[in-house]
Order: sequence, then structure tokens, then C-alpha cells
Amino acid sequence: MTRVTPLIMCGGAGTRLWPASRESAPKQFINLLGARSTFQETVLRVADPTLFARPVVITNAEYRHMVSDQLQAIGIQADILLEPARRDSGPAIAAATSFIASNQADATVMVLAADHIVRDQNAFRAATRVAAEAAAGGAIVTFGIVPDHPATGYGYIARGSETSPGIHVVEAFVEKPDAATARDYVERGYLWNSGNFVFRADAMLEEYSRFDPETVKAAGEAVARSTRDLGWVVLDEEAFSACTAISIDFAVMEKSDRVAVVPVEMGWSDVGSWHAVWELSDKDSEGNAAIGDAIFLEARNNLVSARNLVCLVGVDNLAVIETDDATLVFDRSRGDSVRALVKDLASQGRKEVVEHMEVFRPWGSYQRVDMGERFQVKRIVVKPGGRLSLQKHFHRAEHWVVVRGVALVTIEERELVLRENESTYIPQGAIHRLENPGKIPLELIEVQSGSYLGEDDIIRIEDVYNRK
Amino acid sequence: MTRVTPLIMCGGAGTRLWPASRESAPKQFINLLGARSTFQETVLRVADPTLFARPVVITNAEYRHMVSDQLQAIGIQADILLEPARRDSGPAIAAATSFIASNQADATVMVLAADHIVRDQNAFRAATRVAAEAAAGGAIVTFGIVPDHPATGYGYIARGSETSPGIHVVEAFVEKPDAATARDYVERGYLWNSGNFVFRADAMLEEYSRFDPETVKAAGEAVARSTRDLGWVVLDEEAFSACTAISIDFAVMEKSDRVAVVPVEMGWSDVGSWHAVWELSDKDSEGNAAIGDAIFLEARNNLVSARNLVCLVGVDNLAVIETDDATLVFDRSRGDSVRALVKDLASQGRKEVVEHMEVFRPWGSYQRVDMGERFQVKRIVVKPGGRLSLQKHFHRAEHWVVVRGVALVTIEERELVLRENESTYIPQGAIHRLENPGKIPLELIEVQSGSYLGEDDIIRIEDVYNRK
Repeated sequence: MTRVTPLIMCGGAGTRLWPASRESAPKQFINLLGARSTFQETVLRVADPTLFARPVVITNAEYRHMVSDQLQAIGIQADILLEPARRDSGPAIAAATSFIASNQADATVMVLAADHIVRDQNAFRAATRVAAEAAAGGAIVTFGIVPDHPATGYGYIARGSETSPGIHVVEAFVEKPDAATARDYVERGYLWNSGNFVFRADAMLEEYSRFDPETVKAAGEAVARSTRDLGWVVLDEEAFSACTAISIDFAVMEKSDRVAVVPVEMGWSDVGSWHAVWELSDKDSEGNAAIGDAIFLEARNNLVSARNLVCLVGVDNLAVIETDDATLVFDRSRGDSVRALVKDLASQGRKEVVEHMEVFRPWGSYQRVDMGERFQVKRIVVKPGGRLSLQKHFHRAEHWVVVRGVALVTIEERELVLRENESTYIPQGAIHRLENPGKIPLELIEVQSGSYLGEDDIIRIEDVYNRK
Repeated sequence: MTRVTPLIMCGGAGTRLWPASRESAPKQFINLLGARSTFQETVLRVADPTLFARPVVITNAEYRHMVSDQLQAIGIQADILLEPARRDSGPAIAAATSFIASNQADATVMVLAADHIVRDQNAFRAATRVAAEAAAGGAIVTFGIVPDHPATGYGYIARGSETSPGIHVVEAFVEKPDAATARDYVERGYLWNSGNFVFRADAMLEEYSRFDPETVKAAGEAVARSTRDLGWVVLDEEAFSACTAISIDFAVMEKSDRVAVVPVEMGWSDVGSWHAVWELSDKDSEGNAAIGDAIFLEARNNLVSARNLVCLVGVDNLAVIETDDATLVFDRSRGDSVRALVKDLASQGRKEVVEHMEVFRPWGSYQRVDMGERFQVKRIVVKPGGRLSLQKHFHRAEHWVVVRGVALVTIEERELVLRENESTYIPQGAIHRLENPGKIPLELIEVQSGSYLGEDDIIRIEDVYNRK
């Protein structure tokens, strides 16, 4: 069997898992259910070199550092394609498939969402083999999940006859049903549309071209004219922007007669809501699930995700999601209302929807830990080799105290090395730079002092990450 | 009319309003419902010099700085008596009454709990006048609250005939009833026992002596042998400890035939639970009350007390109390279970039951804002004139950055003045002191660095507050 090239779709920014998932670090990048993000789990799921080739990741430019960092953390190398504009899944798949086809026209490609989980790896691998064999013959094979309950949150696939072992004809894709229709679908053996599928690169491009040749052409040009930036493949903005924004379902899957389905039971979930997180979590004898430090008294069937101590007393069926700067308490079954809430908050311009307290940067991260009228305290972590821009501030002075690792500090013409428990001072207006020349993360406490402390009081004179 | 001497009882440490109320700063000292604590509101309620004399406050030694600071903040002077041991309300009242009687034997005294609120000041003042007149004649007059619902959380007073305008005979004190009995009590015109009352000092001491002469004698000796410490009156420990621990209700009120009651409707509450806080708060059209930044969607009759953003979606009748280090979510009607929870937490030795994130000290306060394996960051606030002990630490070095005000710093033989945006370094083992010589609060950020960062790594060489 030819090896399968994983194509990992990593650009989404869901709101249903707010306040843990936010625009600046959406759910595929956060450790929602364990020590790794679902993006990392997805990459590791397709890391076996006997079955899979080097993965391709396509993501939004905003998430490029996060993708690189998370791959590095698990020791996996990948080609990372950056979308210069949001055009939904169709053009992203067309471009990434063109990229793969430019090396090997008949490569077998598996599209995987970065925010799904799969618990039964053996079932996944078995289904992959079946799908890859059918894909080699020209089929576009989608993974149809055998339902374990009449869910109303997924689209369904009506399967027809079995054309080869494990492969069925797709009779129809149908939209998310109401409860009664869902029960009917499950009885009739319909499958959930998981949005993960396998195809030969040339087959996908041919099919897409049948329905929308302009978009496939534009996507191909976006690849041909792509540029390299610090190892990322930046798709050409003009060409990519010319693609019609459309999901791959509407663009190809629901139109093509080459589509087939492999029914699979693999402990799959799209982790689409806090309710799903509760379902996926270990629970105590009263049905309570805790991520973090939670205490339950006379309470049943609750989910708590907590950073500090959270106590629930005399309540049932709640989800309580506590983060550094926002807490959400809701009836676990009311996920749709959470979406409405987050929309409301966004329209009010609330920063809690967009930003995490921990802000990720190419060189590491920072987090505000205290703030007053004329001061601000941040904990700054710089990765080994990380290098902040050469910069200055008009309105603030900064005190730096190294609490871990080694810092190389430039202030005007002077260079100095600071070790743990050493400090320095950056006067207002002084040109300065911070770097980590060491082998372990550098942590420092920064006390900013001044009349204006906004992030936009920064003049970048030089930046290794090409930021403006 | 002779002026009434307020006697404010301030030593309690309730747990029913956890996590806002904690042992280190219980509910009478926190700003639960407004800009002032209920202790401050109570003091201000009896501040009118035409009606009231200089107040006497009796409190636990642990709270002495908090009492002094909160009085200073509202510009009120008082005699502050410190109980060297917990002996319940009887001995506290006996000692404080002896203290008052030592200046004026027939002073009229009003006992007030520091954690109650009264909304109708006019009704309170009218009842005070009626009670004071009866007290001048030798009666011990308790404030009986006219019930507005059949509460099960209070003791009741069965009143008899009216002996003078507004003054009734007390037929009996009865314990907290069950719901059916409470309805019966309300129908029969019983009153709530508020625990606030008025008497002549000599009359109270006579009555107490009839039932327990040893305790009154010991309380008098505790006053006679009291010492002064920075302005506080420290009751003699040996004498005070000899008093029998008993509530004033059991010691005197339920035994004396000089007890009378003045029925009063004055918008009274003992703020005994989060449910009471909800009742006392302003609510939106859906019955939701918010202290802090709360958003409600499809939610009714909830209470939120929040430091950060708290969102409630699709839930009813909850109380959500979010603090810096602990969040409590519970069915508003289940206050008793909260008590059980706090007891559980205490038995587990959880610091969240005892300490606030903001820790009060005689010289000001501090709050931990960040912590890592080998470092800790604190924001320290020193009051004008505040002076930390001359001290040293074996295991940690400290970096200080002044962000507001002026600091006078002593390090070994050296004295230096630091202004906003200036910093200094205290090496491990160096003898040092921090003072605020200025007229505004001094704020500084302290970064501690070392292998052991516990509060107990401190050697105090000299301390103006006489701490060990």
C-alpha cells in the first residue's frame, strides 16, 4: 500500500468552548482533555511512518507560530501552509492538494480536522487501510461514523450497497436533523459525516475542477506563486483570494459521483461543546467530571474545568468553566446559548472573547499578572533561542528580574548577560532587546512603569520574525 | 436623654459567606454590599453625637489592626478592647460593660453586632430613644424585629403586654423553629431576636452577677488589669480566661426578669447567608443580582459576586461567588450545605478557608500575584507611616520596584529613598527594613527569588507593632 499523506486542517476558531477556547488560541491548540492539544493528538495519530508520509498542515497565518511550536514540542516535522485569507475548507483543500500533487500527482491524501479526537486507534488504522485502497482506485472516501445516539448536531450520510469490503456507496448527504428525524436516521443505518476523508490528489483536483475550475486554478496558482517565510509556505494572497469561499462538502462531496463511505466505529468526537467534553471525561460515581481542582457536594452530572478551586454544592447538570479572567456557568444542555452569549460579548468588544491571559508570540509568551494605574507586571517566557525585536517605548520604563534561565539584554550600545536573581532597568525611550541565548526557557518578571502602558507603545527597529 | 454608648461586637468569624468571608477577614470587615464594610456601617449608624457617646469596640486580638484601619478610614475614634481568648458573647459584654461602668456606672449601653445591616435609620433612631428611656429605668431592652416572613433561621421572642409606649414584656425567648412553627409564631406576633439591646451598665452587671458572679468578677478584673498596647485595651488574659464561655442570651437574657422588648421594623438583616445577600441586593427584571461584572442570558433569580467576568446561561436560583482563588457555585437555597462544605475544606487544611489572597498586616497589606518554582511576585502596599519589621531571610533574595509613593529602605548599614520607578535589591541574609515616610500609600512590586519562599523564613530583629 502507498503511504498516505496527512493533510491537517488547522485554521478554525470555534466559540462553543469559550472561555477556554478563544480566537487567539482556539480549541485545537489548547490542552482541553489531557497533556496535549487535539492538534498534537491528531498529528501523532498519523505519525506511524509505515502507514503515513510527512504531514501537511494548513492554517491561518495568525496561528503559524503556535503550529510550529506545538509540532516542535512533539518532535514532528511537517510542511506548514499559511492561508492568506479565510476561504472555508474547499479552497484550503484545493491548495493543499495542489501542493502535495506538485511533488506526487497520485499521492494518497487524508484530510483530518485538527480538533477531533479518536479513542480507538486500531479501528482508525483499519479504516485508513480500507479507505486508502479504495482511494487508490480513484474514489473519494469519507469516514462515516456509526452513531451511538441520535445526535442532532451532525450531518448524516445515507449509505448504499457495499461495493468492496468496508466501502459503501453514498446515497446522500443530509443536513443536521431534528430529534425525531435523527432517531429515524439512526434506525435506517445512516452515518455521521465526520469531515475526514481520503482521496488521490489528482482525483480530488479533477473532481473539484469539474464543479469549479476557476477555484482549482486559483488555488494551484496560490501554490505556484507561494513564498517561503522562516520555513512556512505562504500561499499567494492575490491568487488564493480569488478562490470561491465554500466548504468542501458543498464544493465537491455532495456533487461528486466518486464519493464513497467507510463506516467506522473508532470512539470519534468533534469535541464540539462542553457537553461533549463532559461525555469524554472520566466521572465520579455521581457523574461529575473535573478538569482541575473541583469539589462536589450533593451535586450530580456536572462538568468543571478550573484553574483555581471551584466548589459545586447542590447543583446538577451544570458546566462551570473557570479561567484566569472569565467564568462561565451554564446548563450543560444549553450549548447553543453559549454561542449566542459569545456573539453578544464579541459585539460588545469584550477582550475576554479574543485574548487569553497568556499571549503567544513567536519568541515565547507573556502573561499580565498585576496591573495598577501607572504600572503593570508581566511574566515573560522566552524560548531557547528566542529573540524579541529591537524596540523602544515612548511612555514606559521597564524593570526586568530574571527568575529562571539566562537573558542576553541589549540596552542602547551595551550588552549584558543576566542570570537567575539578577535584574536590569530599561529607561523610557532606550532602544533595547531581550534574547534567550540558553538551552532552557528564560523566565523574567517585567515591571512596567509609566503613564501609558498599551501594547501599541512599541517601535520595532528590527525583528527576526519579520513583524512590523 | 442621656447619650447612649455603643458597644460594637466585632469578634465573629462566620463561614456561611465563604469564599468572600474567611477567618482572616470575616464578613463584618469586607465590602459585601457596598463601598463600606458592615462594621463601618454599624459604627456610622451610631455616630450622631446628639444621641450617642464615643463607641466601644470589642474584638479578637487577631482583628485589631483591621478594626483600627477601618475606623480610621471613616474618621471615627473608639475605645478598642481586645479579647485575649474566645469566650462567646456573655463575657465579652460583661468585660466591655465593666470597662464602660468604670467611667460612668449608670451609662446607657447599646450592644450592636458588627455584621448586621439596618436600612431604615429613622426607625432605628426612634427605637433607640424608646429603648434608652426604658433602660434608664433599669430594664434590659432587646430589639425585636417584626418578621416579614416566617424565617426558620432566627430565634423568636414572644411578647406580652405593653408596659409603656413601644415597650413590651418578654414572655419567652424561643429557639429557631421549623417551617410550620415559624408560620405559627408569625401569626401570633412573635418577634425575631436580633441580638441587639440596650441597658444601663450597672443594671446589666447586677443581673449578670445574680446568675454568674464569678464571671462578672473575672471580667471586671480583666478590665482592671488590662494593659495598653499601641492604643488598644488588652484585657488581662488570665482573668478573662476564667470567665465561663456562654452567650449573653443564655447568661442573662433568658433568665432575667428585667428584660423587655421594643418591636421594630427597620429593614434589618443579619446578612447570614448568600441568600440574604441576594434578598438585599438590587435586581434586574429577571431577578438577577450582580456584585461585579456579571452577564445573564436566559437566567433568572441568580446572585453573582465576581472579581472577573462571570457569565450565567440558562440557569436559575444559583449563587456564584467568584474570588481570586476560589469559586463557589450553589443552589441559593442550600446555605446549610455551604457550611458543611467549608467544614470539609477546613478539615482538609485548605488555605482558601482561612486566608484571603490579600493579606492584611499592621503596616498595610500584600497580595501574591504570581508564583513559580523558585520565585514569587507580590504587590505590597504600605500605609503612610507604615513600617515593616527590621528583618532578614535565610533562603530568599528580594527585588523591590516602587510603583507608587516613596519608600525608605534600610539595607544593613545603608539607608536609601526610592521613588516611583526606582528599584533596589536585598541579598539573601541581609538585614533590611521597608517604611513609607510619605503621605500617600506606597506600592511596590517584590520579586522573591530562592529555593524556599515560605512566609516563615523571617527573622524579626525589631518591630514597631510588637510582633514576634
